[in-house]
Amino acid sequence: MPSTINTQVIFRKVPTTYPVKGEHLEVARMPFSPDTIELAPGDFILKNLVLSVDPYMRVRMRIDTNPVKAKSVSDPVPINGVMTGGGIGLVIRSNNERFSVGDYAEGMIGWEEYTVVRSNKADSFQLRNDAKNSGLPLTYYVGVLGMPGITAYIGLLKIGDAKPGETLFITSAAGAVGQLVGQIGKLKGMRVVGSAGDDAKVRFVLEECGYDAAFNYKTRDTSEALTEMCPGGIDVYFENVGGKTLDIVLEHAKNFARIAVCGMVSQYNREKPEGVYNLENVLWKRLRIQGFIFSDHIPEYGAQFQKDVMTWLKEGKIKYKEDVVVGIENAPDAFIGMLKGKNFGKQVVKIADP
Amino acid sequence: MPSTINTQVIFRKVPTTYPVKGEHLEVARMPFSPDTIELAPGDFILKNLVLSVDPYMRVRMRIDTNPVKAKSVSDPVPINGVMTGGGIGLVIRSNNERFSVGDYAEGMIGWEEYTVVRSNKADSFQLRNDAKNSGLPLTYYVGVLGMPGITAYIGLLKIGDAKPGETLFITSAAGAVGQLVGQIGKLKGMRVVGSAGDDAKVRFVLEECGYDAAFNYKTRDTSEALTEMCPGGIDVYFENVGGKTLDIVLEHAKNFARIAVCGMVSQYNREKPEGVYNLENVLWKRLRIQGFIFSDHIPEYGAQFQKDVMTWLKEGKIKYKEDVVVGIENAPDAFIGMLKGKNFGKQVVKIADP
Repeated sequence: MPSTINTQVIFRKVPTTYPVKGEHLEVARMPFSPDTIELAPGDFILKNLVLSVDPYMRVRMRIDTNPVKAKSVSDPVPINGVMTGGGIGLVIRSNNERFSVGDYAEGMIGWEEYTVVRSNKADSFQLRNDAKNSGLPLTYYVGVLGMPGITAYIGLLKIGDAKPGETLFITSAAGAVGQLVGQIGKLKGMRVVGSAGDDAKVRFVLEECGYDAAFNYKTRDTSEALTEMCPGGIDVYFENVGGKTLDIVLEHAKNFARIAVCGMVSQYNREKPEGVYNLENVLWKRLRIQGFIFSDHIPEYGAQFQKDVMTWLKEGKIKYKEDVVVGIENAPDAFIGMLKGKNFGKQVVKIADP
Repeated sequence: MPSTINTQVIFRKVPTTYPVKGEHLEVARMPFSPDTIELAPGDFILKNLVLSVDPYMRVRMRIDTNPVKAKSVSDPVPINGVMTGGGIGLVIRSNNERFSVGDYAEGMIGWEEYTVVRSNKADSFQLRNDAKNSGLPLTYYVGVLGMPGITAYIGLLKIGDAKPGETLFITSAAGAVGQLVGQIGKLKGMRVVGSAGDDAKVRFVLEECGYDAAFNYKTRDTSEALTEMCPGGIDVYFENVGGKTLDIVLEHAKNFARIAVCGMVSQYNREKPEGVYNLENVLWKRLRIQGFIFSDHIPEYGAQFQKDVMTWLKEGKIKYKEDVVVGIENAPDAFIGMLKGKNFGKQVVKIADP
């Protein structure tokens, strides 16, 4: 393959609130000659095809000082390094026994057109040739069949310990994870209530995802809405936002409710976090609040997740809405827009055709 | 038994901060003629012997409005009702098959010299004749062998999922529950660190309870102390205080740490609760914060607890410090003093000899 350009998104500076394109994230166009790069044993080169863009990436835009106090999952991206995220690439050169030219590989790729995967990172990649002729969009493999999918599955069923007949409340209800949580909740026989930030998203979860009730938190008071829509209280809260919403849910939780903490996106772009005032409820109602990261649970739940979700997709029991932008140079706008809730469905970037 | 006086402590008014004797809690002397009281089937009368005084009782001094939002364990005491708490009494009259005159009965008694137990409450009492000739103080049966004891046991071993080699941090480390949590932690092979509100309590947990490290949170910065005493971070936090301390612990918690929420006494006497700002750590460190009440776990753990703690006491492996006041009329001062941390050891009221 001749010399070309590798368009990359570079992390330049730690933002205090929302990142700004050009200041904190910069698009760079670097010369790239894949044929001349030396590949040590275990190395391979990917032409990237799809990239998942997720809220947690905002938290990686930081510099750690105290190791115990650090946010210890998802390491910070080094300043002037390429942003990274889950994605799928086509192997175009390889010195790795597991990956041959023409294979699809899934793992943490750069926000870039080409990623050189060195041997020390190669183990975290997996073959994804099953995506080639599945009849499903390739983007699904970084969405409903990937990290957001298993996050929804584990968060609801394992961390949330969801039971039929219980009441489930989901924030970011139409998001990459939320839309699945609600649909899985319905498949499991729960009453499902969601909130989202615009009326189209509310209609989507009601009409397409089968939620029992939903509201726009920007135009409706959350506590009033929960009083109306969860009159007996909440058994499982799938937490995507944190802050004031968590405070309100603590008051509406039933005894022994579980709060599965998947994200706290309302806090990621604030200079200082909001206070949460109603934690006494944890005691009196014997609540369980638990954070989780999907990767901890893949050994136990990965295979069952793949089987269940693939079955549900083929049988038409779940739907998955995506928000696809094309071109890695558009990743910063897609990412920043998503942090502001402008995406509608799972945000993905299509980088190239195979 | 001839007519006598029943000295009682009455709940008069909901306090906004610390209760005041005479305003919120009033000592009343009521005529009492046990022989003339009509006993329906199941009823019995107790001459009360010992009363446990505990921080959670402050939370019962309230009026509930919204049932879902209510603090739903430990019902409020009705205004102008007698305060209640765990205690042991001598049965002096009975129309109940389970309790005969001369028996010891344990359950929720009034803050009073005599309690008439009606049949609808009788099932929650248990025979405690094993306390008569055990060689242990009767007060132990509402302390190390009672609610505080099983709270420590379940909170550390079940909710906290404590493991040998892990680091345990305990607030109110010399209190009714805390002093046991630390000693059980040491028996289980943990590194144990505690905080308390005066130097004598700190010396007690270091010298008598075998803690590895301890500090006075009034004279030492908690975050600095934890950096020094838990250099690798905290695995299990036994939460008795809430508020700012919880915020600091969230920063010092290790990945997968468990926070067993037993109490949040720093919040009970505030007009408005403090905010907690570091909850994002729940996500990034995959923390579990769980509230619990001992009574939920008695069916599963009660027998094992009794066996273990009795063995440890007899073998001298655990000690138990009590702060005993004599006379029910002194219960309000003992209670209010305890809320301010003036007690040293488990606060109990000795009401009468048998």
